[in-house]
Amino acid sequence: MLVLYHSGLTTCSKQVRHCLREKGLAYQSRYVDLLRFEHLSPDYLKLNPHGVVPTLVHDGRVIVNSACINEYIEEAFPEPRLSPADLTERARMRFWVWTADDSHPQGARLTRNRRLKAAVEELTPAELRLVLERMPVPGRRERWQRQAQGGHSDEEIETAIEHFRFVTGRMEQELAARGPWLAGETFSLGDISMTSLIHRVFELFPDMLPRSSHPSLNDWFERIMARPAAKLVYAAGTDETPRLPPGRSVSGITEFRIAASAG
Amino acid sequence: MLVLYHSGLTTCSKQVRHCLREKGLAYQSRYVDLLRFEHLSPDYLKLNPHGVVPTLVHDGRVIVNSACINEYIEEAFPEPRLSPADLTERARMRFWVWTADDSHPQGARLTRNRRLKAAVEELTPAELRLVLERMPVPGRRERWQRQAQGGHSDEEIETAIEHFRFVTGRMEQELAARGPWLAGETFSLGDISMTSLIHRVFELFPDMLPRSSHPSLNDWFERIMARPAAKLVYAAGTDETPRLPPGRSVSGITEFRIAASAG
Repeated sequence: MLVLYHSGLTTCSKQVRHCLREKGLAYQSRYVDLLRFEHLSPDYLKLNPHGVVPTLVHDGRVIVNSACINEYIEEAFPEPRLSPADLTERARMRFWVWTADDSHPQGARLTRNRRLKAAVEELTPAELRLVLERMPVPGRRERWQRQAQGGHSDEEIETAIEHFRFVTGRMEQELAARGPWLAGETFSLGDISMTSLIHRVFELFPDMLPRSSHPSLNDWFERIMARPAAKLVYAAGTDETPRLPPGRSVSGITEFRIAASAG
Repeated sequence: MLVLYHSGLTTCSKQVRHCLREKGLAYQSRYVDLLRFEHLSPDYLKLNPHGVVPTLVHDGRVIVNSACINEYIEEAFPEPRLSPADLTERARMRFWVWTADDSHPQGARLTRNRRLKAAVEELTPAELRLVLERMPVPGRRERWQRQAQGGHSDEEIETAIEHFRFVTGRMEQELAARGPWLAGETFSLGDISMTSLIHRVFELFPDMLPRSSHPSLNDWFERIMARPAAKLVYAAGTDETPRLPPGRSVSGITEFRIAASAG
């Protein structure tokens, strides 16, 4: 029995949902609404003390962190393989999983300024204080406070854009030299992790990665998006990726209870 | 034939040096002097396009990123084991490897303000420009520029300290509940990664982790520091951890040539 607590189309949730679908594994989906702060509810914090999504519960065993969850899935359910057999290629796979993770704060600068700014500004000062009190990870608290104080500077946004230019440039070089996948011959967890980022880059900056300058990256992305698993995972408006109504609140912090938390 | 490019007692270099020593593996040590900016030399950037240490070269195969390198070493040289057999414990091991990596920017705030500030201030504006031009990773450039502009604010330093309080609090809980090691019964890559951080915390803040509040963490740290591998790795002033003379320069950017780069 697999239960996945996730937040739909957010970066780390996409990574694990994609991995589960590529494996053809059935799982119970528990949607955690970040804009209602359900990830900061007392029950969810018992499951995941960092207060982040996703969390996988497998026969009662709790696994956290998207990169760790996907390695766990790969080891617990080895077929179909999502990692190369060759050790050097496995190291390259893990390098791209790490790169996606390392890019997360830079991606968050862009999406926070563009998407969550309005949500934060909707909170009353008392509500914001409640959210910050409940947020366990100090670095995340700092980023939220920053957002409440007007968001990132132009220079910080430019660094984030430069980060994605650098990372996508490296991807283009690697895919051209040693493709078709990021680790080489085998579609892997590295591709799954980076897809979640590149999908976001195409959403936010449709002109950043033209085929003329990034042919191998565009081929790679199209091959992935044509896979049945990716089509399911990246579709908006499904049961797992609800289109959210406006007017969010902090009620999740106090109201949210995890259904069937025993898995 | 194993060749390790490393910078001695910096966090990520300690992680890989410790792993190699626990395995009892012989390797050629190539010290990369960060304060001479040898990691930004043209030859080193060919080996490691991010311009960071460490890099492992195994029979000509190049592996980068300390977490990926240690997973590679564990798979290429399985004995003695540095990972649990149980899949849930393996996920916990990887969570702590990830935590060490995730803590790196917060640790860098503290060490940069305390140790590298003087080094940056020694550079002429032209030298600083040269360093920033050669630094491939935008987020690192931003942190250096920040340092050149006076360093981190008191609030940012406080967030970094809070981060370590949070992480060490989680370690204490986990070690008390499910020790003796971070992943459970098996000394693992998770312990190796976190040791590099906790060693730094004890250096910078000798009073932050008293035995009265963190008994399990102190026991854990003492058990690790008593291991022959850790004693070798963490000793200052050895061939691999030279005591650096003052008066650094950017000469490494142009002068540094990698000896025997073919491995």
